[in-house]
Order: sequence, then C-alpha cells, then structure tokens
Amino acid sequence: MVGVGIIGYGYWGPNLVRNFFETKGASVRQVCDLRAGRLEHAAMRFPGVRTTTNVDELMDDSTVDAVAIATPVSTHFDFAMRALAAGKHVLIEKPLAGTAEQARRIIEEAARRGLVLMVDHTFVYTGAVRRIREIVASGDLGDIYYYDSVRVNLGLFQHDISVIWDLAVHDLSILDYVIPAKPRAVSATGMSHVARQPENIAYLTLFFSDAMIAHIHVNWLAPVKVRRTLIGGSRKMIVYDDIEPSEKVRIYDSGISVDDQSAEGVYKMLVSYRTGDMWSPKLDLTEALQLEAAHFIACIEGGERPITDGTAGLRVVQIMEAATRSMGEQGRPVDLA
Amino acid sequence: MVGVGIIGYGYWGPNLVRNFFETKGASVRQVCDLRAGRLEHAAMRFPGVRTTTNVDELMDDSTVDAVAIATPVSTHFDFAMRALAAGKHVLIEKPLAGTAEQARRIIEEAARRGLVLMVDHTFVYTGAVRRIREIVASGDLGDIYYYDSVRVNLGLFQHDISVIWDLAVHDLSILDYVIPAKPRAVSATGMSHVARQPENIAYLTLFFSDAMIAHIHVNWLAPVKVRRTLIGGSRKMIVYDDIEPSEKVRIYDSGISVDDQSAEGVYKMLVSYRTGDMWSPKLDLTEALQLEAAHFIACIEGGERPITDGTAGLRVVQIMEAATRSMGEQGRPVDLA
Amino acid sequence: MVGVGIIGYGYWGPNLVRNFFETKGASVRQVCDLRAGRLEHAAMRFPGVRTTTNVDELMDDSTVDAVAIATPVSTHFDFAMRALAAGKHVLIEKPLAGTAEQARRIIEEAARRGLVLMVDHTFVYTGAVRRIREIVASGDLGDIYYYDSVRVNLGLFQHDISVIWDLAVHDLSILDYVIPAKPRAVSATGMSHVARQPENIAYLTLFFSDAMIAHIHVNWLAPVKVRRTLIGGSRKMIVYDDIEPSEKVRIYDSGISVDDQSAEGVYKMLVSYRTGDMWSPKLDLTEALQLEAAHFIACIEGGERPITDGTAGLRVVQIMEAATRSMGEQGRPVDLA
Amino acid sequence: MVGVGIIGYGYWGPNLVRNFFETKGASVRQVCDLRAGRLEHAAMRFPGVRTTTNVDELMDDSTVDAVAIATPVSTHFDFAMRALAAGKHVLIEKPLAGTAEQARRIIEEAARRGLVLMVDHTFVYTGAVRRIREIVASGDLGDIYYYDSVRVNLGLFQHDISVIWDLAVHDLSILDYVIPAKPRAVSATGMSHVARQPENIAYLTLFFSDAMIAHIHVNWLAPVKVRRTLIGGSRKMIVYDDIEPSEKVRIYDSGISVDDQSAEGVYKMLVSYRTGDMWSPKLDLTEALQLEAAHFIACIEGGERPITDGTAGLRVVQIMEAATRSMGEQGRPVDLA
Repeated sequence: MVGVGIIGYGYWGPNLVRNFFETKGASVRQVCDLRAGRLEHAAMRFPGVRTTTNVDELMDDSTVDAVAIATPVSTHFDFAMRALAAGKHVLIEKPLAGTAEQARRIIEEAARRGLVLMVDHTFVYTGAVRRIREIVASGDLGDIYYYDSVRVNLGLFQHDISVIWDLAVHDLSILDYVIPAKPRAVSATGMSHVARQPENIAYLTLFFSDAMIAHIHVNWLAPVKVRRTLIGGSRKMIVYDDIEPSEKVRIYDSGISVDDQSAEGVYKMLVSYRTGDMWSPKLDLTEALQLEAAHFIACIEGGERPITDGTAGLRVVQIMEAATRSMGEQGRPVDLA
Repeated sequence: MVGVGIIGYGYWGPNLVRNFFETKGASVRQVCDLRAGRLEHAAMRFPGVRTTTNVDELMDDSTVDAVAIATPVSTHFDFAMRALAAGKHVLIEKPLAGTAEQARRIIEEAARRGLVLMVDHTFVYTGAVRRIREIVASGDLGDIYYYDSVRVNLGLFQHDISVIWDLAVHDLSILDYVIPAKPRAVSATGMSHVARQPENIAYLTLFFSDAMIAHIHVNWLAPVKVRRTLIGGSRKMIVYDDIEPSEKVRIYDSGISVDDQSAEGVYKMLVSYRTGDMWSPKLDLTEALQLEAAHFIACIEGGERPITDGTAGLRVVQIMEAATRSMGEQGRPVDLA
Repeated sequence: MVGVGIIGYGYWGPNLVRNFFETKGASVRQVCDLRAGRLEHAAMRFPGVRTTTNVDELMDDSTVDAVAIATPVSTHFDFAMRALAAGKHVLIEKPLAGTAEQARRIIEEAARRGLVLMVDHTFVYTGAVRRIREIVASGDLGDIYYYDSVRVNLGLFQHDISVIWDLAVHDLSILDYVIPAKPRAVSATGMSHVARQPENIAYLTLFFSDAMIAHIHVNWLAPVKVRRTLIGGSRKMIVYDDIEPSEKVRIYDSGISVDDQSAEGVYKMLVSYRTGDMWSPKLDLTEALQLEAAHFIACIEGGERPITDGTAGLRVVQIMEAATRSMGEQGRPVDLA
Repeated sequence: MVGVGIIGYGYWGPNLVRNFFETKGASVRQVCDLRAGRLEHAAMRFPGVRTTTNVDELMDDSTVDAVAIATPVSTHFDFAMRALAAGKHVLIEKPLAGTAEQARRIIEEAARRGLVLMVDHTFVYTGAVRRIREIVASGDLGDIYYYDSVRVNLGLFQHDISVIWDLAVHDLSILDYVIPAKPRAVSATGMSHVARQPENIAYLTLFFSDAMIAHIHVNWLAPVKVRRTLIGGSRKMIVYDDIEPSEKVRIYDSGISVDDQSAEGVYKMLVSYRTGDMWSPKLDLTEALQLEAAHFIACIEGGERPITDGTAGLRVVQIMEAATRSMGEQGRPVDLA
C-alpha cells in the first residue's frame, strides 16, 4: 500500500484526492493547503482524511510514501525538492516547474535518490490521445505534415503565468507524447490586454528538422470554447475535437497526390487532393486521472518509468521558456538547444 | 450604359460575367480567355456574348468602358496597365497585384487618368462582413483586443503563389474593412509540403500601435473546412462562422472586468470574466458579387470612390509582401512602413 | 432542520443524497436500499451516514421528517403510502406512480394528513426550462402553435416500463410546466424490438382545445443522443437544445404573416414567412436538483405548495396511461377526461 | 436524340431545363408556362429555347418525344394523360398525382401505350440515398428496427396541399427505395395554423408486417432547418443528415444484445447496448437531377424500366392518401390495402 499526501487543495487537488481514494494500492494519508477554508471543504467531502496547513507535517509523516503537488507553478520546485529530500516519490501538476533549470534539478534529485518522478500531463492518459498516438505510430498517416491546435475559452486569468504556461502546456504535452519528432526552434507571438499582467493570448509555431510544422493557439478571452487539434499527414489526417460529446477523434482518408509531369518540353507539377471515407474509432472512456493515478502507483511499486516522466516535463518547459522569450520579441525565432 | 469586358474565364470569371449580366446599367460586351475551351463554355452559358482569345480585341473595343480582370496574379499588373492606358475603368480580382510596387503604379495610373480602380475584395460586400463593420464601428465591443481568423480546407494547390496570397488575402481584406486601426508589423510562419512549391500552410500575426493583435491561419491541406473569425473586445465579442448556414454572425455579451484592489498594504488585481446573452442579427443575403458589380457601375457613373479602392488593395498587398519575407525567416517580425 | 431519509440508492439516489447533504436546513439521516453492495458504496462516498436494507428502520426513525423515494416505479405507491402513514413528507422520483389511480390516492393521503407531496420533475428546476416558461408566459411568442420534442439515445433498457414512462415523462413534465393549456386527447404509436419487453421507441401526439399540437419522440435505441425541443409561436419560436454546452435556449424572431386578399373578385390568402434576429439568453447554471431539494425543504418549513406537486405528477401519469392505451391500438386517439 | 418539352417553369422547372440541356442524348425543345413573366425569365437564362403559354403547342410538337411536368399537383393527371395520349414519354415531378386513383390510371395509360413513365423522386438519385440503399441491402444493419425522419424548416406554405404532400413525399420516396418491406397501415396526426389552409405540421407512423416501424415528421413552420433520418438495425445504425456539408451518412457500429438468462428458477432477460466505431463513407457528389435526367433518357432509348417508375409513385401516393385520412381522425390507424 502506497501512502499518498496531496499538497494543494484548490481547483485540481480535489480530483487528485478523489482519484487516489479510488486507486487500488493507494491510501490517502494527508491533504495540505494553506487555506483553512479549503481544508474544511476537503474534510466535508472526504471525512476522516487528515488535513493540515503545515506542509512539514506532511513531509515528516512516515506513512506518506508519495506526494502529489497541485500548487501554483512558482512553488513546484520547492515542494518537489523537499518531498524528494524526505524520500518521497513525487507527482507534480503540469508544468513540472517554472524554469528549465529548476526542472533539471528536480529530475537529477529524483534520479540520484532513485525515486519516481512523474508529471501530471493529464491529457496523455485520455482514451482520445492514447488512440491518436497509436494511429500516428502505425504510420497510417504517412509523413506528418503539421500539428495544429486551438485551445481557447473565456477562462480564469492567472496572475503569475501567461496563457502559454496555463493552456499551451496541455498541447505541448500531447504533442510530445503523440509525435516522435522533437522541435528545433519556436516562434511565438502574444499580447496582454490587462495592464501589468502576463499575456492572455498567444500563438506558437514550432519548427522541426524536416518539413513538419506545429502551431498552438491559446486564449483566455474567447467567447466560445474550442478544443480542436488537426494532424495532417500525406496519406490521412486526424481531427481531434475534445468538445464533441462523442466521436472526439476522426480520421479522414484525405490527402494530396503529387504528379511530376514533363510533357512537350514543359515541366509541370500537378498537386491534386483526394478525399475518401472518414472513420471515428471507439475510445476508452476511463477517466484519465484514474489511469494516471494507477500508473503512478504501479511505477512506485514496480520500479517502472512513468510515461510522463521528468524528461517529458522538461521538454515541455524548455519549449515554453523559449516561446516566452520569442513572444517578448514579436515572434523572432528562438532555437531549442 | 457601361460596356464591360471580362478577361479570364476560369474559376471566378463566370461569376463576374453572370453578375454583370444581371446588373442594371451594365452591358457585357466581350469575354476573353487564352483557352478556346473556356470560351466555348462561356458561349454555351451566355449565348450571344462575344468571345476572343486575343486581349487586344477587347482593349481596342470602344464599346468596352470597363474591364474586369480575373486572371492569375502575375498577370494583373500588365492587364491593368493596358486597360487603363486604353482609357478603361478597372476591376481587379484580389489581390490587386503581385507586389506593392506594381500596386502603387496601377493606383497612380488610374488616378492620373481619372479612371475608377476597384479591387474585388468580395467578402467586404457580404451581409455578414458589412454587419460586423457596423457593430465594430458602433463601439459596442469596447476596446478591440484581438482579431483571429481561421480559413482552412482541402483545396486546390496554387503553383505560382503561396496560401497567403490565395486565402489570407480574404482575411486581410476583411480585417482592413472592419477594423479602423492598421498594422505596424507582421510575424509569419509557414511551410511547404511539396518540393519546389510555395507554402501551403501559413500563420500570420499582425501587431498594431496599441494592444490589439491579429492572427490569421490559412491551410490548403486541412481535412475539414473551417471559416471562423473571432473578434474580441473588452465589452463584447463576435464570432463569425461562414460555414454556418444561418446565424453566421453571433455577438456575445461577454468580457472581462478588471478590479484594482489595494487592501492591507497588498496590491492585488482581480480579473474576472463575465458572460451574458448571445445575439445573432438577421443578415442581408444578397449575393456579394451582385452588390459589388452594382457598386462598380455606380462608381463609374457617379464618380464615387469604391469602398475597396486601390489603396485598400495596396494595404493588403503590403502586408502579404512583408508576411512572405517574415515567413522566409521563421517568424522574424517585419515592419510595415 | 429537516431530517431526510432516502429510499433507493441506484442511479438517481446518490444525486439525491449528495444534494440534500448540500442543502441548508436539511440533514441526511438514513439511506435505504435492498442491495448491501449499494449501501457499501453509499458509506464510502458519504462516511458517517446511516444505511439500512430494512425500510422499516427508516420509516420508524423519528428523526426522519421527510422521505425521498428513488426506487422502481412499481414500488412508488407502497413506499409513498407507508411514508405518509408514518407522518413523513414525501418527494417521489418521476413518475409519481405507475397508474393514475395510485397517483390520486397518494395525493389524497398527503392532503388528508397535511403533508408535503412533491414529484421530482427535475427538468422543471433547470435554468433553461425556467427561462422558457418565463418567455412563454410573457406572451412574446404570440399564439402557441406547437411543442415538439425529441429525446433519443442509446440507453439502458428498462424491463418493467416502456420508454414512455422512462423518457417521455421528462418531456411531459416540461410541457406541463411551460404551457398553460392542458391536452384533451392523445394518439401514440410505438414498438418493442425485444421479445416480451415493453416498447423501446414511441411517438406521442397531444391534442388541445385549440389548434395547438404537441409531439414527443422517445427512443432507447438511437445511435446518437438528441435532446431537442421546438416551440413554435405565431410571432416567435424557441429551440431548446439540451445537448449544447452553451446557448441551450434560442429564441428566433421568425414566424408567418397571413394576408387576406380579395382582389379582382378572386379570394386569395397569402401566407408568407418572416425571419429575423436570433437571441440566446444567459441561463442560471445552478444544478437543478439543488434548487429542487431547497424548494422541498422550503415547502416543508413554510407550508408552501411545491411547483411540481402531486397534481402535476398526476397530470403527467394520466397522459402516459392514455398514451400507453393508444399505443396498444396503433395510434387510435384516446381522450383525456 | 430525345426531344424534351418542359411544362411548368416555377421553382423546379428551371432545374429540369438546365439539366436536360446538360444531358447527352437530350435536346430541350420547348418550355411551357401560363405566366408570360416566367417565360421571359426562361428566355433570358436559356436564349434560343422556344417558349409558349399554350400547352397545345408543346403537345402537338412532333419533335418533342418526352415531356417533363413540373406543375401544381392538381394538374399532374391532366397533363400526364394528354402527353401520353400524344405519344410522349413522361417524367412527373413528385408526387405522381393527387390521388391513388389518378396515379393508377396514368400508370395504365403509359403501360398500354408502351411509353416510359417516371416519377421525379429526386432524393433517390443522390449519392447519399444510393449509398444508404447499398448498406441496407448488404444486410450489415441486421434486422431493421425503425426508420425515423425529420424534415422541417421555415418554408413556403402551399395552398392546395398539406405539408405531407409537399415534404413527407420526399421521405416516403426515400423509404420506398431504401427499405424492401412495404407498410401495412398508417397513423397520422397534424394541424393547420392558418384558417382554411391545409395542415402545415404533420407526423406519420407507418406499421409493417414485422416489428419495424417508420415515422416521419414534417413542418413548414420550424425556426431551424432539420433534415435528419435515423435507421436503426439490430447490429448497426445509420444517421443521414442532409444539412451536413460533408459526412452526410454515418454508420454506427452500435446496437443491443439480448441475453436470455434463467438462473435460480428466475427468468430474466438482459438487454444491454453496445457502442463501437463510427464510419462515414465517401459519397458520389454528382447532382441528383443530372443522374435522373440521364436515367430518363436511357430508359427511353433502351426500354429500361425507371428506378422510380409509376408504381413507386403510386405506393407513395397511397400512403399519403391514407395518412391524410388518418390525420383527419386524430391518428386513427388506416390500413394500406
């Protein structure tokens, strides 16, 4: 039985608590939050669970084997390092850390101590994204041409981070999981519409070593909710619409065919497009966080490496760091080392 | 009665011919195309109309007072200059010309000769776009924060121009008509997926003197057709979805409210969002090209200045020229003089 | 403080328990179900709550002032009569009872004892339906011409009742709340596709004293989920689409205008249609069952009459009883006394 | 070459003229309409075509081998009989005739004279409906359980016929083509909302010899346009949505499985539902009327029997006649002999 402590009982914390309660092999030991009101709420929903406003109590609790951190990004590094120092496995809400440097130090510390470090890239554990990865991996799409994602809605403004670190982090973690190629450079643009606040709208273009291109559009200030990803291949294309109640993933047997012709001394290239059937596979509807919690426990018990390990978290943070720099210079491209 | 000659009977030409046939005060005199097959088609649909493969015949025809040019972009300059030299008013399919320099010379020539020069920015004449302009002009949206447009589908690849000059030109012409502010700089990214062909996917960000930002996404290789524009304001927001059979324009009474607070010595800013009713106005469903043809004739007869005059066409070409340069440098921002 | 006992912890019971937990003035005292497994589940989710498989324990519990019944329809009458006999107020899941006769006896018993009797017509308490009632009541629609509702999906087959008693009951309760006029006759058709099972697809037409007509289509065996109601008036029309994540209620300024003409001795009537703006009001998003639970407690404490009282429940049962008879005779109309 | 004359140049006539112009083997000889204004319009769009307000001219024209009739329903019988008497093949716009008796006489007359009689059930020639027929015929759906169709919009009121004869005729012709079984009885309900006018809203239920059931909902007074047909089978189900710009036909691998159990002396039947992949086949996008015109000419030239022959037209008229009777008696079922 793995004893679990949760730090942070805000928006996401209750989901972590509930899912660890329902995970075999896990036992929720403590919930920690600075706000007494939040802890009262936790006590109402999960009577009997121990709550505390003092994180030391959780760190010192020898029945807590693993810590799940769901606090503001700026605090991830400190809590993670303290938990690792206390010999506890760590699950951190996305993004792994506020800087790539911090992410690297967390990864090293976990490796040095032989502890499991997992990043809560939740979407990676959805039935839709797992299916998309399978389809891409099968090669059915042909060459991957582009990955285009839109994630906009009227949402809560964050005060400490821009919309990239709040929303694009989802798309970057999906991209990282689904597409084997890794980006070489990023050009980003964005804008803040509230004085002294980080950007609430942003556009990222990622360049790769070949002709693939990726683009992510995130916006906290859109009148409608859009969650749509297009993945274009030379042979087939995917539309992943997370708003759809069913048929979230659709595969189109569409593409282009290129026909080199050299007739009558005149060179001419014909590019024609081709449309065919559409197909929408049945998806596993298990709650992503439930699979994720079980995977975290399995990694602890079996010494497995998490699918969304520290290095996946680092790659995403690196891109966001570079994108933030590019955004400050109106889209000047920034290399990803 | 204004005698009209049409040069180019490919995809768009037949629409011009049909609409000038139905326009009071206009009389279609000649249709010119290099391809005899296309002219046969014209003769079948519009029996009695004179057709020719020799553009000189049209230029020399003294009953032709005005020329509508619907040929590949690279030929716009030559045909326009010849028509103006022959004393004819000119309507040119978008984009006005292949370079800003050419566009400027066409404008000067028309001005020098006192002839009407109009650019066929068709969307400007739709009921939807005219209504959006009214709403923006009314000030109801508050401060304009962003203009975001997506125009993607599986479409015909052009061989001489990139997707920017084929599709983004629509969005840029709508933006130019609807939003009074003009952009200062552009950052664009894109990619070609067919060897030796121009870019088939592109992303443009436009910067303005204030916090407004505009973004345009165009793609010839998308499995689904999307034609959606979001215009975000501080008080209200517009969604313009041109795919919808009805209710193409929706106004959301949504926005953010910012509340500066300075309590207990701690400065804190609260940004909260607000949602309200949605409203979709009835739109004029008249075919855009019909209004446009009538407007062209009215400008000729009354000496009016066209809504989509040469300078509007030039502004759009300038942005595309700068975007093309930026796209060649992975998004490095390019100033618009 | 009103002590509440819940009988039945299947699909709907947990929602009742949760909402009474969150209702001020209510205190959940006991949860009763015949299945020990379900009670274990209840104890896990609501630690500390008393559970029992013996309904007598609940009936005899003097701290239980009110009973919420969420059991199969065939048991509603017995449980309701026992609870009333024990002096307890009663909330019954829809439909009120399996026959109109039983419904009448429950109403009489509650009246005789001065106890609150409320039927759980949940949709009546949604923001959407309450808004629709307001709009209809305002007279803005003009004369009401029709009410047309579709409620289909691939759902659980019930073994004791037809799809009318499972799904149409929702539409009938909404209709009863929203439209002042009451139906005079019903014609219903339907079919069972599993041997020895009640109908899984059904169509009901309701006739009124004037030209209004209502129709309800319910189906357990549809490949897609549809929840759409059209309300047509002479001046305006409503579309209520419960699947939409937002803008569930839309009001169309559309209708017909009739123009009697008698020209040149020839009588002619011109009916033309008219389309205008569409408008979608912001809706209260409070969970319906939360409002409903609070309303039940308020009725008990203040002696108020519930919005969805026994007579509303009876009217709905009467229609379903008549519709069932008509369905057995391939649509022969059956009068509603 | 088959000489074709068209009677009636209202809403549908121009489509017939245009398509026969484009049909190989056909030559449009005359267009007849009582309204001179309509004929002027025809002359403008199809210069050179002979027009007349006198139907005798068309009947007497020996170069006219075949007549297409697109006039009000009440005139179909007379025009068809005159054309057959003049030895001309006949294509009649749906419905074939205003009564089953008239339909029978037209069929007999055509048979007696060995002339082709075809009914313009246009939807039968669409790529969508042809594909649906193939899927149904393949047996992939398993047992057909139901056919459910909705065809509503804000449309032109007809003065001489109810909405059944204007809109349901489409659904009945599709049903007739797609489903091999033929209905045994019909129950219909409906209402008129304009004094002295036929019904503008109607609901039809069709009964078959087995458990299959069909339902059609038509309405001229709906605020939104809906064109959706569900076909439910024991193994798979079809959704045909004619409003969708693409993917009009979707096949769902969904259904129910019935499991008879008899355990512990208790008989129990378990009905569970099953969902799987969805698949949308590519459709032939050829204009239906083009295929239909070519089929008409081919039948004349090759002596083929039309897919939508007189007996198909008669079956549809018989159902509408019975439905009209049932509608007058509030849904009392009427047998189809």
